[in-house]
Amino acid sequence: MNAMTLQVVSPVPTDIDIANSIQPQHISAIAKKLNLNPNHYDLYGKYKAKVLLPVIDELKGQKDGFYVVVGGITPTPLGEGKSTTTVGLCQALGAFLDKKVVTTLRQPSQGPTFGIKGGAAGGGYSQVIPMDEFNLHLTGDIHAITAANNLLAAAIDTRMFHESTQSDSALFNRLCPPNKQGNRIFNDVMYTRLKKLGIHKKFPEDLTPEEVKRLVRLDVDPDTITWRRVMDVNDRFLRKITVGQGVDERGMVRETGFDISVASEIMAVLALTDSLSDMRARLGKMVIGNSKSGEPVSADDLGLGGALSVLMKDAINPTLMQTLEGTPVFVHAGPFANIAHGSSSIVADKIALKLVGPGGFVVTEAGFGCDIGVEKFMNIKCRYSGLRPQCVVIVATVRALKMHGGGPAVAAGKPLDRAYVSENVSLVEAGCANLARHVEIVKGYGVNVVVAVNRFSSDTDAEIAAVRAAALAAGAYEAVVCSHFAHGGKGAIDLGVVVQKACENATEPFKFLYPLDASIKDKIEAIARSYGASGVEYSEQAEKKIKMYSKQGFAGLPICMAKTQYSFSDNPAAKGAPSGFVLPIRDVRASIGAGFIYPLVGSMSTMPGLPTRPCFYDIDLDVTNGKVKGLS
Amino acid sequence: MNAMTLQVVSPVPTDIDIANSIQPQHISAIAKKLNLNPNHYDLYGKYKAKVLLPVIDELKGQKDGFYVVVGGITPTPLGEGKSTTTVGLCQALGAFLDKKVVTTLRQPSQGPTFGIKGGAAGGGYSQVIPMDEFNLHLTGDIHAITAANNLLAAAIDTRMFHESTQSDSALFNRLCPPNKQGNRIFNDVMYTRLKKLGIHKKFPEDLTPEEVKRLVRLDVDPDTITWRRVMDVNDRFLRKITVGQGVDERGMVRETGFDISVASEIMAVLALTDSLSDMRARLGKMVIGNSKSGEPVSADDLGLGGALSVLMKDAINPTLMQTLEGTPVFVHAGPFANIAHGSSSIVADKIALKLVGPGGFVVTEAGFGCDIGVEKFMNIKCRYSGLRPQCVVIVATVRALKMHGGGPAVAAGKPLDRAYVSENVSLVEAGCANLARHVEIVKGYGVNVVVAVNRFSSDTDAEIAAVRAAALAAGAYEAVVCSHFAHGGKGAIDLGVVVQKACENATEPFKFLYPLDASIKDKIEAIARSYGASGVEYSEQAEKKIKMYSKQGFAGLPICMAKTQYSFSDNPAAKGAPSGFVLPIRDVRASIGAGFIYPLVGSMSTMPGLPTRPCFYDIDLDVTNGKVKGLS
Repeated sequence: MNAMTLQVVSPVPTDIDIANSIQPQHISAIAKKLNLNPNHYDLYGKYKAKVLLPVIDELKGQKDGFYVVVGGITPTPLGEGKSTTTVGLCQALGAFLDKKVVTTLRQPSQGPTFGIKGGAAGGGYSQVIPMDEFNLHLTGDIHAITAANNLLAAAIDTRMFHESTQSDSALFNRLCPPNKQGNRIFNDVMYTRLKKLGIHKKFPEDLTPEEVKRLVRLDVDPDTITWRRVMDVNDRFLRKITVGQGVDERGMVRETGFDISVASEIMAVLALTDSLSDMRARLGKMVIGNSKSGEPVSADDLGLGGALSVLMKDAINPTLMQTLEGTPVFVHAGPFANIAHGSSSIVADKIALKLVGPGGFVVTEAGFGCDIGVEKFMNIKCRYSGLRPQCVVIVATVRALKMHGGGPAVAAGKPLDRAYVSENVSLVEAGCANLARHVEIVKGYGVNVVVAVNRFSSDTDAEIAAVRAAALAAGAYEAVVCSHFAHGGKGAIDLGVVVQKACENATEPFKFLYPLDASIKDKIEAIARSYGASGVEYSEQAEKKIKMYSKQGFAGLPICMAKTQYSFSDNPAAKGAPSGFVLPIRDVRASIGAGFIYPLVGSMSTMPGLPTRPCFYDIDLDVTNGKVKGLS
Repeated sequence: MNAMTLQVVSPVPTDIDIANSIQPQHISAIAKKLNLNPNHYDLYGKYKAKVLLPVIDELKGQKDGFYVVVGGITPTPLGEGKSTTTVGLCQALGAFLDKKVVTTLRQPSQGPTFGIKGGAAGGGYSQVIPMDEFNLHLTGDIHAITAANNLLAAAIDTRMFHESTQSDSALFNRLCPPNKQGNRIFNDVMYTRLKKLGIHKKFPEDLTPEEVKRLVRLDVDPDTITWRRVMDVNDRFLRKITVGQGVDERGMVRETGFDISVASEIMAVLALTDSLSDMRARLGKMVIGNSKSGEPVSADDLGLGGALSVLMKDAINPTLMQTLEGTPVFVHAGPFANIAHGSSSIVADKIALKLVGPGGFVVTEAGFGCDIGVEKFMNIKCRYSGLRPQCVVIVATVRALKMHGGGPAVAAGKPLDRAYVSENVSLVEAGCANLARHVEIVKGYGVNVVVAVNRFSSDTDAEIAAVRAAALAAGAYEAVVCSHFAHGGKGAIDLGVVVQKACENATEPFKFLYPLDASIKDKIEAIARSYGASGVEYSEQAEKKIKMYSKQGFAGLPICMAKTQYSFSDNPAAKGAPSGFVLPIRDVRASIGAGFIYPLVGSMSTMPGLPTRPCFYDIDLDVTNGKVKGLS
């Protein structure tokens, strides 16, 4: 790949101005660099294409490239530039170091784009373009998730309604009606349920009345329903609602709520699946609640696994885009990093690793700080994919380390204290305990760690030197300063060179933090210890749920801890490297289809709100040319 | 255009089997037939493309082709094949009569695809393909509408919340914050509001405290909010809900509900707009409710017209698809035919008319029977577009006419009475009063009427002859039998020939049913008389709303009657051609952005439900090849 001529300007213009100043290449040209031919992808306009899943089969014989994951230290609320570093590193590898490279990123949620924005396309001279297409609609995957999630929600309430108003035989007549010849037949999804019920009969006529009852009555206990509706809009007034108040619903009211779409379990399924058949199975297995007798009720019990798969059949294909310097990017899936695992898709990584081949690089990002993001990347995503990274990049900033060293609070929308813009080496040194803990956690997996110091203009050489020294002391393979925000790929060449070395010199054996066959509690405690906790405390509710999931046969799933990203502990104010705390588990939930149990440490917001002056105030269309204005 | 070799089989296989048996052409080949080059469209996969709006400007100098609209008699609940006839006629014109032709159809709602299905892609050997892509997601337009509609809904509740908890100056500080230089500036959408308020000041500092209050407080009266949330899912439990029950919403609960997405006013805007600037203006003008002082509150008052336009910027481009015989189809917009006008988009028709050029044909469909569908097509859509059809095709079936003649009730899912499958000429003759009334209504616009008898296998020659005679007696230009369901375009050649003649011999001057400057009541009464009503009766609520809209300056809008399609009257059981009834107007509502007032005759369902055994039970993915199974 050849470097495009990126003309950088100082001071760095706004993200949208930079993005609009570059004419993207036709996406077929980007595809060609990866040796993809037009049969391998579907175009979605001129700058996006969905790479089709069967490419995986075609490339089966190929060897994989290097697999690099970018994590971060415990961040400030302003973010430390993890996405930007991911993109900048790839621009360096592809446009300057002449490597085959693919960046794999999560699709951002559209809701926050109109609320309080945290850009997900990178920033400055390290971005994915076209930036507006990246942030809006993309190729419709999140819309497909919204549609599928809500079809399942509608099916649950409607089924309860129909069960409450019909006799067993009326339900049977409707669910399994006689055909024109007067015969009833089971369809595939009914066989799935019969098998689950232990009824091994082929013909509807052979069912006893008791078996008919078990087949047709899901008997969902409304108090156990965990499936909520979703919407890709920041709509706080939907957090808690009462549904079913229409007269035709005859008083079957119920309290429930909406989450933002990316919090849907279906998003987590999309991120963790690797084939159509696996996706079909996971979607069918998703548990929406329990029957009154305590059995889990699945999407397939509702007859819906197939239709959900149909709604998701195009979403499984990752979207190809490009960076400002013309290197290829896969944008795919965007699961939450708290109640889900926060990484882009296995499908995208697998295809990308084959496409770059030996000596090439796939660079992906883990959500949140390494304590959560990399932990989940390793123990959930890599466990399901079978892939192993050769190198983890930990992004650190002097700003965040100063905060960890005892600097004043940092808050979005408020001016930074001057401690953050003038030299204070001792504050940095004190904060490096946070970086050191993250390095140690990641090294525990047997992977080389490279620390990338994302340099801000106010950082001094002495401060940077302090970070570098601390990183090496903690066992990092190397620590490098980079300035890709201001300079594009050119600013991350050193990082690229070091990452290449770290990959080529990967030697230690990979190890998971916990074995899957440990008990739910043992797994939770292993993760808690990696945070620095001395122990775990379970609420009564958590104890009850752990017993329930164990009894239901789900104890063998990996654990996805829903914890604040602002501290190793459950207390976001505890900066640095706290230890000896007891981690409280308030509740335990499960995404059975996606395939993990998620303990809640504190309460997690799954539906953001809009501020008084949302971003949408400044967003408009230039009606003369169709261009988007004011997106940030 | 050359006829493809459509091999028809008897008896006619299922729609999905026929659709899957034909390999569609690459959509670029279809585009080429219309002289579109790759710069004129964006591909969405291999079989769909969005034709880009600027094509309209490029073709400005071109003359239009003939414009044909397909309506129907008062239907049975089974439907009389209007979409199928629209598609079949185009297959005849394009594939057998060597005409340039474009079919323009509405995008179907995805919700009902999984509930109780009424296919919208046509049927039998007259269909739009790929049928699954037509019915699911398409190119994301409805998803964009859902996102835009719900962003507006979230903004309303959140704004009320922020106004209730903040002082005028706090609101002003947040809505119009000082920049880094300490200066406040108004952005464009704020100037729009200031202008509406009659405040002609350029600088925020110059506002008096009273003016600040008027700017920042929309003071929405929650009881007047007409804007509801939407979802493209049949979710009856969302018809009536209470929102805002989360603790953080501090008791600001409110009753509201969801409609299905195609019922959104934004869908009607999409169908009625003709440019980006017009769409931007309409979206900004949409009224969501009143202030406590009775002033209408718009999307622009909320600062949201621009962001809504950005969400809709790709949706304004119509989607190009193809029929089974390779003729081009534009699929675009899908407004309800009751609370909206029920026709596909002006943009699609305008582009298509230029593309086919003189001697070519654009055939579109009007929702419901002609009494409603064609009336709205003429008085709303044609009024806004400036386009005039040369010919209206009225689709009739012997089955429906027998029902109108006094045959037993026809219901979906129940076996047909034998009256409908054995010869009964007198029943048909009696029912032709319904056809005659529709012919007369349509002739009133000064347009040639062609009656298309959509022949079923049980129809006898004598029955068909009776329909033909009645049609001609009522003033139809011609009446033709067609069998495109069983034979594809070949079965509609006679219809094509007659439609061509009717277009070439269009002579009468076009006239609207009412002038726009008549009062709201006069317009309602003109429409009611066209139905055969002797008068109109207004509820107290309707009277109040008519006064309100008139006072607010909206009396000059056309009227969009929300009436049952199953009778000329408000009583769906009154078949044939009832007259002398008094039409009751229960309520009057308005879609100010789309541009019409809609009186409600009876109650209209805007959110369907799911049956006990929804279609989704049979829908699944063939995971070996990604094909959809069981879609009907």
